[in-house]
Amino acid sequence: MMMTTLLVLTAIGCGLIAFAIAFAWRVRPAVVHDHASQRPRVVIIGGGFAGVYTARYLEKLAGDRVEIVLVSPRNHFVFHPMLPEVISGSIGIMDVVSPIRRMLPRTELHVRTVEGIDFAARTVQTSTGFHSHVHAIPFDHLVLAMGSVTDFRGLRGLPEHAFPFKDLGDALRLRNHVIRVLEEAAVEHHDPALRRRLLTFVVAGGGFSGVEVVAELNDFVRAVARHFRGIDPAELRVVLLHSQDRILPEMDSRLAEFAQRLLRKRGVEIRLDTRLAAATGQAAVLGDGTALLTQTLVSTVPSSPHPLIGALLLPRTPQGRIEVEATLAVPGMPGVWALGDCARVPAPGGGVAPPTAQHAIRQARTLAENIVATLDHRPTRPFAFRGLGKMGALGRHSAVAEVFGVRLSGFLAWFLWRTVYLMKLPGWGRRLKVAVAWTLDLILPPELVQLEAQGSTGIVREHFEPGQEVFEQGDVGDRVYVVLSGAAEVIRDGQRIAVLERGDYFGEMAVLGGAQRNATVCCTEAMDVLVLPRREFAMLSGSLPELRHSFETTAGERARSIGSR
Amino acid sequence: MMMTTLLVLTAIGCGLIAFAIAFAWRVRPAVVHDHASQRPRVVIIGGGFAGVYTARYLEKLAGDRVEIVLVSPRNHFVFHPMLPEVISGSIGIMDVVSPIRRMLPRTELHVRTVEGIDFAARTVQTSTGFHSHVHAIPFDHLVLAMGSVTDFRGLRGLPEHAFPFKDLGDALRLRNHVIRVLEEAAVEHHDPALRRRLLTFVVAGGGFSGVEVVAELNDFVRAVARHFRGIDPAELRVVLLHSQDRILPEMDSRLAEFAQRLLRKRGVEIRLDTRLAAATGQAAVLGDGTALLTQTLVSTVPSSPHPLIGALLLPRTPQGRIEVEATLAVPGMPGVWALGDCARVPAPGGGVAPPTAQHAIRQARTLAENIVATLDHRPTRPFAFRGLGKMGALGRHSAVAEVFGVRLSGFLAWFLWRTVYLMKLPGWGRRLKVAVAWTLDLILPPELVQLEAQGSTGIVREHFEPGQEVFEQGDVGDRVYVVLSGAAEVIRDGQRIAVLERGDYFGEMAVLGGAQRNATVCCTEAMDVLVLPRREFAMLSGSLPELRHSFETTAGERARSIGSR
Repeated sequence: MMMTTLLVLTAIGCGLIAFAIAFAWRVRPAVVHDHASQRPRVVIIGGGFAGVYTARYLEKLAGDRVEIVLVSPRNHFVFHPMLPEVISGSIGIMDVVSPIRRMLPRTELHVRTVEGIDFAARTVQTSTGFHSHVHAIPFDHLVLAMGSVTDFRGLRGLPEHAFPFKDLGDALRLRNHVIRVLEEAAVEHHDPALRRRLLTFVVAGGGFSGVEVVAELNDFVRAVARHFRGIDPAELRVVLLHSQDRILPEMDSRLAEFAQRLLRKRGVEIRLDTRLAAATGQAAVLGDGTALLTQTLVSTVPSSPHPLIGALLLPRTPQGRIEVEATLAVPGMPGVWALGDCARVPAPGGGVAPPTAQHAIRQARTLAENIVATLDHRPTRPFAFRGLGKMGALGRHSAVAEVFGVRLSGFLAWFLWRTVYLMKLPGWGRRLKVAVAWTLDLILPPELVQLEAQGSTGIVREHFEPGQEVFEQGDVGDRVYVVLSGAAEVIRDGQRIAVLERGDYFGEMAVLGGAQRNATVCCTEAMDVLVLPRREFAMLSGSLPELRHSFETTAGERARSIGSR
Repeated sequence: MMMTTLLVLTAIGCGLIAFAIAFAWRVRPAVVHDHASQRPRVVIIGGGFAGVYTARYLEKLAGDRVEIVLVSPRNHFVFHPMLPEVISGSIGIMDVVSPIRRMLPRTELHVRTVEGIDFAARTVQTSTGFHSHVHAIPFDHLVLAMGSVTDFRGLRGLPEHAFPFKDLGDALRLRNHVIRVLEEAAVEHHDPALRRRLLTFVVAGGGFSGVEVVAELNDFVRAVARHFRGIDPAELRVVLLHSQDRILPEMDSRLAEFAQRLLRKRGVEIRLDTRLAAATGQAAVLGDGTALLTQTLVSTVPSSPHPLIGALLLPRTPQGRIEVEATLAVPGMPGVWALGDCARVPAPGGGVAPPTAQHAIRQARTLAENIVATLDHRPTRPFAFRGLGKMGALGRHSAVAEVFGVRLSGFLAWFLWRTVYLMKLPGWGRRLKVAVAWTLDLILPPELVQLEAQGSTGIVREHFEPGQEVFEQGDVGDRVYVVLSGAAEVIRDGQRIAVLERGDYFGEMAVLGGAQRNATVCCTEAMDVLVLPRREFAMLSGSLPELRHSFETTAGERARSIGSR
């Protein structure tokens, strides 16, 4: 065993020395920051493909002639195509993201949210840090690259109960939740309905993103479930909901059919022509009104342009995207540019450029060239990229791809997918780490470490559908509810004893008294509630006398009214 | 470049094939769970070294004769000696922890917190999961191995503002905070005092844990600061506070002096005979009353036995540890055992066994043997381990060690440290991953990815010392405060306009009106407050009419009183 370890380490060592030599060639000199600069300042808003690559091309093309400031809510750039792999942990969590600072050595990075833009004063206002100072960044050129955001508004219960899948935080939260659900199912021996709910995983949306997520999720739960005593792999149910008659509408129908067959073979239940209508904490409610009981609902569907755009006086489409000219300039606003998912960029052959990474990167190049051209008083050029192809991963050693009109599926497409994305990863260090992680992943079992502890979730909103129980008589009382809309009834020993409406709160008796629930609360109309866990409830009612007084009075009245029955 | 990559991958491939062969020898068969078992059940509380190794030895010694249940709030076992390396990310986040399920294939794991133990009914009550059912686990033998918890109670401001360093969550939170502080300092050009505060890092406690944390923290901030434009490495200040006249009191004084010299050479400021007296959100307050301005205070000092022990009727020491016999049995309670940091275990030569991993592991073995002996009606044996040695890492390629009476320092001690801990890591897969990560770490720069987004922190408590400002006139108003104890004054344009006391709230005017702070609030007595960020304040005041009414009335009165001046 010692010999084997030595052999492994020696072999790895050899490779690393070779790599170190390669790496030394590429070391960049440190750049000293020039505070008193009078150079024109380009402020870029957004840290996705569009924003980061605009800064990258500007660093290359404009050298030290411009000062570049990039404002991003995250200090890292997420390499989206590999995000689903975070679920299974097949690559290191930090390998799917790159520190923006290291990618952009000459750019000043502000890790902040943008609160507003003053086009008259030509400044960008950002959120506050450790001290609540007002921060404003003046600009000569402004590049809007905020991308899109997950937007569940208008979808009943989705903001409260569906997992979005857009950034690293989403991927980590989903991973931790899936492991927690499996941990719970492993010790839940008494309630078969709860067990089924815990072991059902639903993904809504059969586009690239939904298919990649369901493929990884399916591989992951089936691989780790073997380690859970008391979970029979046959109990696992992974469902993909899609509103059209086939998945992957972006691709050729033969590739989509290949993907459907493969996913089904691996145990994914694909439900076509099925729309997700609403969500509760216990179910996905489908278009026909049936409830699919689940504790895990991922929705990759709705995304809309960044909400900041709505607050700005900019030309925009009815969907809220910024209208730009083919040069990526915002019409009528000199020095203001937009690109990527937040903009409606005219495609060279007519129509609109699709919101994908390959288009964002080419738009970034055109935009950087056009800013330099403007500084040089040269004419600007239109965006003229037509796309190379499309690829979608299907989990374990399989993918579908359409490249230059050629269709590929299965192992070959998967190998192409890995190679292309490995080479596209920013930085040789990261490429090496991912290559090593992928290799180790071939022989090592998947990780099932849950990173976050359970802990209190803070004050949250929850949505309930009619007929659903909020809690049952005899349950442990660990949270207080406030009705925001809708209605419910309180049932004690089979008798309806009260009706709850907007503004009413309930559940405080068991929490104040440390006892079990003395009644069942069941929804009569779709209901939204605010949930205060015991810890938050104790902190608030302990320090806000009005609140405590009001809770105690109500609890007292209810105790008397129950006693007098 | 392609050639180099190929070379690297081939070399790694060779190693991996060798490893795969070694791995195949060790594959364990899956174990089917037997629900209807009538075997005696051993319930172990705690997922640290003591608990996990007790289960491990029981699996070995008792085979299928007992049913083992382990209750742990985490689904993973933290390999504490390597936890400081999470700060710098020199090994993968998930490599410092092992899934308990994989270490203990025959044990039933409950990922729950223990809420109570009923010794009469012989059951353990655990916290609730997705449904608030009551959970109780019956036991024949009970092993108490809850370890110790960080206990900042009684230390002014520490619960609110100091970072503990005990589990993976603590290490990740500290890492994210340090990166956030550097990000903020990089864009803070206007306020030199705030800049100094952001770039000062303080660790309290010069024992093993504090020294290892300060060494890693120092290496990490100095390595990553190079990537921040606008941070001069000379601005960084890393301070170690220690209440005695030398660090590492557990070790020989010559080794401690070596460690002090080395840390100082690497830029750590060591302040001996200095006690941490209190903490605020902006400073560490020292024993002599001086305030050391910092945004990052880590305290490794106070730990006390798990709070659950206080609620149980068990023989305990004045410090709250469980009294046990040399056999690890709790006197007078047949079938109840305790070990590890939560127990006072008599050492073989007199005195008490120290709370370290090597002792916990040996206690676990003795305890497992004694449970089996009890089942066989054989006599039990006392714990008789005297310790092998002590090691402490000092960051980059250096450590101190005392093994079998031999003192080692510098590179040799570091090499020994790495080898010993690598071999102690559970599982060959993990050892390989850590070996690869350590090797890559020699040539790749440290990661500076911040994992969590800033986001709202929820409702929290904060502590302020006299003379400290809560906010300043003109600041952005983004939170509301409720005074829990102490007092403050409100100053507008240099005039004192009001005094705030227990139960008063303030800051609501700017939040309700979306405006800037119209006055400065400055503490006159040490003050504790509850802080409601804008999001939580809006959710609560939007749904609890009493609260909104009360806030609006006060805000109206204050506006009139200011207007009338």
